[in-house]
Amino acid sequence: MPGNSFGKLFRITTWGESHGPAVGVVIDGCPPQIPLEADDIQAMLNRRRPGKVITSTSRREPDQAQILSGVFDGRTTGTPIMILVKNKDARSDAYQELAHVFRPGHGDIAYQAKYGIRDWRGGGRASARETVGRVAAGAVAFELLKQHKIEIIAHTVALGKTRAYRFDPQVIDQNLFYCADPDAAEIMAQTAENARREGDSLGGIVEVLVKNVPAGLGEPVFDKLDADLARALMSIGAVKGVEIGAGFAAAGMKGSENNDPITPDGFLTNNAGGILAGISNGDNIIIRAAVKPIPSIRLEQQTITTDHTATEMSIGGRHDISAIPRINVVCEAMVCLVLADHLLRQRAINK
Amino acid sequence: MPGNSFGKLFRITTWGESHGPAVGVVIDGCPPQIPLEADDIQAMLNRRRPGKVITSTSRREPDQAQILSGVFDGRTTGTPIMILVKNKDARSDAYQELAHVFRPGHGDIAYQAKYGIRDWRGGGRASARETVGRVAAGAVAFELLKQHKIEIIAHTVALGKTRAYRFDPQVIDQNLFYCADPDAAEIMAQTAENARREGDSLGGIVEVLVKNVPAGLGEPVFDKLDADLARALMSIGAVKGVEIGAGFAAAGMKGSENNDPITPDGFLTNNAGGILAGISNGDNIIIRAAVKPIPSIRLEQQTITTDHTATEMSIGGRHDISAIPRINVVCEAMVCLVLADHLLRQRAINK
Amino acid sequence: MPGNSFGKLFRITTWGESHGPAVGVVIDGCPPQIPLEADDIQAMLNRRRPGKVITSTSRREPDQAQILSGVFDGRTTGTPIMILVKNKDARSDAYQELAHVFRPGHGDIAYQAKYGIRDWRGGGRASARETVGRVAAGAVAFELLKQHKIEIIAHTVALGKTRAYRFDPQVIDQNLFYCADPDAAEIMAQTAENARREGDSLGGIVEVLVKNVPAGLGEPVFDKLDADLARALMSIGAVKGVEIGAGFAAAGMKGSENNDPITPDGFLTNNAGGILAGISNGDNIIIRAAVKPIPSIRLEQQTITTDHTATEMSIGGRHDISAIPRINVVCEAMVCLVLADHLLRQRAINK
Amino acid sequence: MPGNSFGKLFRITTWGESHGPAVGVVIDGCPPQIPLEADDIQAMLNRRRPGKVITSTSRREPDQAQILSGVFDGRTTGTPIMILVKNKDARSDAYQELAHVFRPGHGDIAYQAKYGIRDWRGGGRASARETVGRVAAGAVAFELLKQHKIEIIAHTVALGKTRAYRFDPQVIDQNLFYCADPDAAEIMAQTAENARREGDSLGGIVEVLVKNVPAGLGEPVFDKLDADLARALMSIGAVKGVEIGAGFAAAGMKGSENNDPITPDGFLTNNAGGILAGISNGDNIIIRAAVKPIPSIRLEQQTITTDHTATEMSIGGRHDISAIPRINVVCEAMVCLVLADHLLRQRAINK
Repeated sequence: MPGNSFGKLFRITTWGESHGPAVGVVIDGCPPQIPLEADDIQAMLNRRRPGKVITSTSRREPDQAQILSGVFDGRTTGTPIMILVKNKDARSDAYQELAHVFRPGHGDIAYQAKYGIRDWRGGGRASARETVGRVAAGAVAFELLKQHKIEIIAHTVALGKTRAYRFDPQVIDQNLFYCADPDAAEIMAQTAENARREGDSLGGIVEVLVKNVPAGLGEPVFDKLDADLARALMSIGAVKGVEIGAGFAAAGMKGSENNDPITPDGFLTNNAGGILAGISNGDNIIIRAAVKPIPSIRLEQQTITTDHTATEMSIGGRHDISAIPRINVVCEAMVCLVLADHLLRQRAINK
Repeated sequence: MPGNSFGKLFRITTWGESHGPAVGVVIDGCPPQIPLEADDIQAMLNRRRPGKVITSTSRREPDQAQILSGVFDGRTTGTPIMILVKNKDARSDAYQELAHVFRPGHGDIAYQAKYGIRDWRGGGRASARETVGRVAAGAVAFELLKQHKIEIIAHTVALGKTRAYRFDPQVIDQNLFYCADPDAAEIMAQTAENARREGDSLGGIVEVLVKNVPAGLGEPVFDKLDADLARALMSIGAVKGVEIGAGFAAAGMKGSENNDPITPDGFLTNNAGGILAGISNGDNIIIRAAVKPIPSIRLEQQTITTDHTATEMSIGGRHDISAIPRINVVCEAMVCLVLADHLLRQRAINK
Repeated sequence: MPGNSFGKLFRITTWGESHGPAVGVVIDGCPPQIPLEADDIQAMLNRRRPGKVITSTSRREPDQAQILSGVFDGRTTGTPIMILVKNKDARSDAYQELAHVFRPGHGDIAYQAKYGIRDWRGGGRASARETVGRVAAGAVAFELLKQHKIEIIAHTVALGKTRAYRFDPQVIDQNLFYCADPDAAEIMAQTAENARREGDSLGGIVEVLVKNVPAGLGEPVFDKLDADLARALMSIGAVKGVEIGAGFAAAGMKGSENNDPITPDGFLTNNAGGILAGISNGDNIIIRAAVKPIPSIRLEQQTITTDHTATEMSIGGRHDISAIPRINVVCEAMVCLVLADHLLRQRAINK
Repeated sequence: MPGNSFGKLFRITTWGESHGPAVGVVIDGCPPQIPLEADDIQAMLNRRRPGKVITSTSRREPDQAQILSGVFDGRTTGTPIMILVKNKDARSDAYQELAHVFRPGHGDIAYQAKYGIRDWRGGGRASARETVGRVAAGAVAFELLKQHKIEIIAHTVALGKTRAYRFDPQVIDQNLFYCADPDAAEIMAQTAENARREGDSLGGIVEVLVKNVPAGLGEPVFDKLDADLARALMSIGAVKGVEIGAGFAAAGMKGSENNDPITPDGFLTNNAGGILAGISNGDNIIIRAAVKPIPSIRLEQQTITTDHTATEMSIGGRHDISAIPRINVVCEAMVCLVLADHLLRQRAINK
């Protein structure tokens, strides 16, 4: 099967290029009778918009979500939900020079190798703009999760080498980096400003925390909940690593340290990140994604043209300093999609 | 769809419980006319067998692979290949006591929550014995990869807190930990011995390196090569984290450090781990999996019975000290399966 | 998985309701570098438009296809192709009375039972308007088939009780019923006129003939070419039967009559309809679909309201007398989609 | 995806060749806690065995079903159920002569074209023996359907040109042809005897009737219940046509005749065959499959060798006169599989 669909029962297909007429998503498998308004989608889409945040470019897209099918009288009907977002601010001419060169760290060279053709305007399909469809679909998935009281929070645990050390969920929305540690957020602001001045960019780490997940979600042995979450996050362009619970730190622990003791009142610790043998155990799900620095930088870089001649390039124009924190809501959306899918899958076998 | 299948075009379904009559795998979609003997499978299966290695239990399974279909006159026919391995050394009685208690760090409690029934004999389906089918299928996938000159090496880069610092591929098969750093391997032996004496267990990190991967594999935007690899490795019971190329370290890099400069002769560095925008770029693929310590330990642990009463348990009997290095060949097999699948998928669109 | 997608490698998802803002289709898996213009799609869409033909209603939809993604510089890029067609002539108020009654022979009562909610405007998702997406996608599939010189012809072999007895492909486009027998076409015109006068409707049989199909397409044992074709045609709303080659007549034959003798120059007969053991044998594919009469008729019918009270209804307004011949191009499109899918699937295993 | 799997949530994969060591099936997605014994499977398998019936060969296979996984303490566990049946009576030498010739009406020539290799022993994968796996899986599906009180009956409505005109379900098991018309059954016996004497074979028509199907099953617009049933039956080797309810007869009806009037007590007629717009409407499901005559006949036939030289062949040895009535239970099994799959799919969206 081709690769633009995600999920088995709550299944989405995203479509659209950065500088085409529109981007969007079709959701197939959303249960009927779920209240849904365009505003529910808009709210989540607005969180991935640039502009508010210090690390982002000045490109302004209203990103107005239109629901073209699958909703009737304010409720889902069980038929496919098409959500379309027009591309308004597409300055393709600014990318014309990219038609004949492969940008380092971007998918240009790989797309060309794969397809023998590429829409070079703004990265085409490989652009972060593709995530509009993911977030719109994630918003719909979240409406389903809300019926199960599931809560979900994405927050920044590292920007560049600056790490968060506290977790105060109240402050996440109060700083530019969606960071739960207000002191770290201040340092991040400085870090970002430095990178911008240098013409460079930053990576970071996003954590997604999910509360009230019912035990029993996940389908061993290949569609384990953690396996599907890992795929979900790794499918986001900038993500280079994923870990669940203690994650890479678990590799250095002993069994007696890593095992979460079980009591009649629940688990005493949560190194498992809420997932055992690929199935949710009822505890919070904790998952982290390592985000690489934005590859488009002003600093000169060594590369080649499409006819394989050496050249150098500096990428000017508007470019984010970091995918963080705009990527946070994308991570959140992907986690929503995985959970919605597994909720439905569990319903099927557990009447 | 249920969760016991993996791959879209080179598609496997594993089946079998630890203490049932047999375990195995059906491979559907293997191209015809590939030379295949039971010995090809046996060689790879032997590498996951316990006994040789210091971290493993003394359970001895001949693990004799039988090919029951799909091969005729020593070549694949394009029809499903069923490979069956009998369970010979299944001492279920040793597990009888586990019928009424949930082992910490194991899937027992999650399986019960999901299905309302569980085969408690030796972990049932959640046992590492399920990986026999993965490795057998991986061996078949590898026969396909060999036709494209693809090479694959799994090696241990950490056992507990002991890390490898050198990469000498020659020595991997010369030490008990499949470690490419012979000095580290010696320390690992001591580390393992200590853990055994303490009645505890160890985690670690496995790296899989793939050479000669053609550019163009991977299906954006959800079935990206790295997304599928992440899912593949995370679907192995003990794995809690996955990273590609620079991985989590990329989060702390600047764009100018992390971008791999492109020259007419190829990439100067490989922070991307051979994958850009989810598509192989022709460079080596590098991927690492964080493996948690074996949850079965002799040390007393706090847990509950199946009727939710607090209790303590010490797990005696034969248990590995670490999933490493037996898990290495499982990681290798999963990577083979992903690559075989994407080779076929790329063939379909690129005549 | 949900049910609005079709195909494994050449995979489409249709979306949209009869009286929503638009209908359309996303095609995922179309190979790159295929020349494609909106006009290619428009030509096929025009053939399902009402107006030209005597059996059809007067609803006029320009059905202008817009390509929103996946095509760059006149060629496919390998990324999802979104085709959108706006609904212009949607007189929902004419359907208001249908909100509280179940039309006999329509899906109203079944949709209500399944989803507990239904978009009653013009049949919603169950409307024949959904086939706009199928035809648009079929047009793209046909561009791929053309590269293999595959030809495809749909023609009417029966309207009501009037059957065609000759096959003269030249005349198919020269009569209102796309019938290859000009004499039968004349009788059909009379039959249709009679039904219209009676306030009744007609069924019929469509045959699809495919030439130059390469041998080897079809995936035993469940995705046999004939199995996939049967599903494809039976998924069209009005179709109640499908047969391949001799079809139901084969049930009354003896083996010596039904077997197609093989010679070095090919098969002497084609009772198999070009498919043996689910695989194309290189001969023409012949498949027929039985189309039921349009359920919306002016004659009074016995039915119930949505609160299960007995009532009678006469369905006035514009309604086709028969799904034939507008359905012919839909059948053709579905066959194109099956063949495109199996062409790609065969490429994958047969390098 | 490859073609040896069927179903989305109740998903089976059959494997095995006619003259390999065994045939079988893996069922993935069977809900947990369903009582299941090997005897349940055996009972259904016995109905497809030759020997009892006049049209069948004398090959005797005990067809002993072994459950190798997925069942614990007499109940399903939710993990894959592997059922294996050994091939005991495989006289491959009798087929040696078939290595170099293509039998008319068989898949030999198509398999060779597709794969470039074929297991010619007894038809290999294309043998009716493959259906053992389908029937075994169908028996498991039936255990699930029984929990919903669903009943299913397959019976013969035509053998060659002899048709049944009465429907007396009591007598189905009392004659050799599983025919509900005892008079027709007597004529069928004579018809079969004549064909045997002539060295020829017969086709026929099987009808499957399903009672107590809940309304709401089926997933528009491509996985409609009738579309999936059509694919299911057409995927059986000998089937060349499928029709639902009035089927091909509906093509000759007027709307006023074909529409089933709705009353507060249900439908007055059942031309729809229990399915409207692809969704079960609560009435009985009625579906028929046209079965072609067995292609292996004693009469001389024109064919070619594998090096494309003209030759003639008479196929001696044991061969059934007709796939009927052994195929009846296969049709029944396929219908069970479709219904089980759609029951689970409906559960997922309809909590």
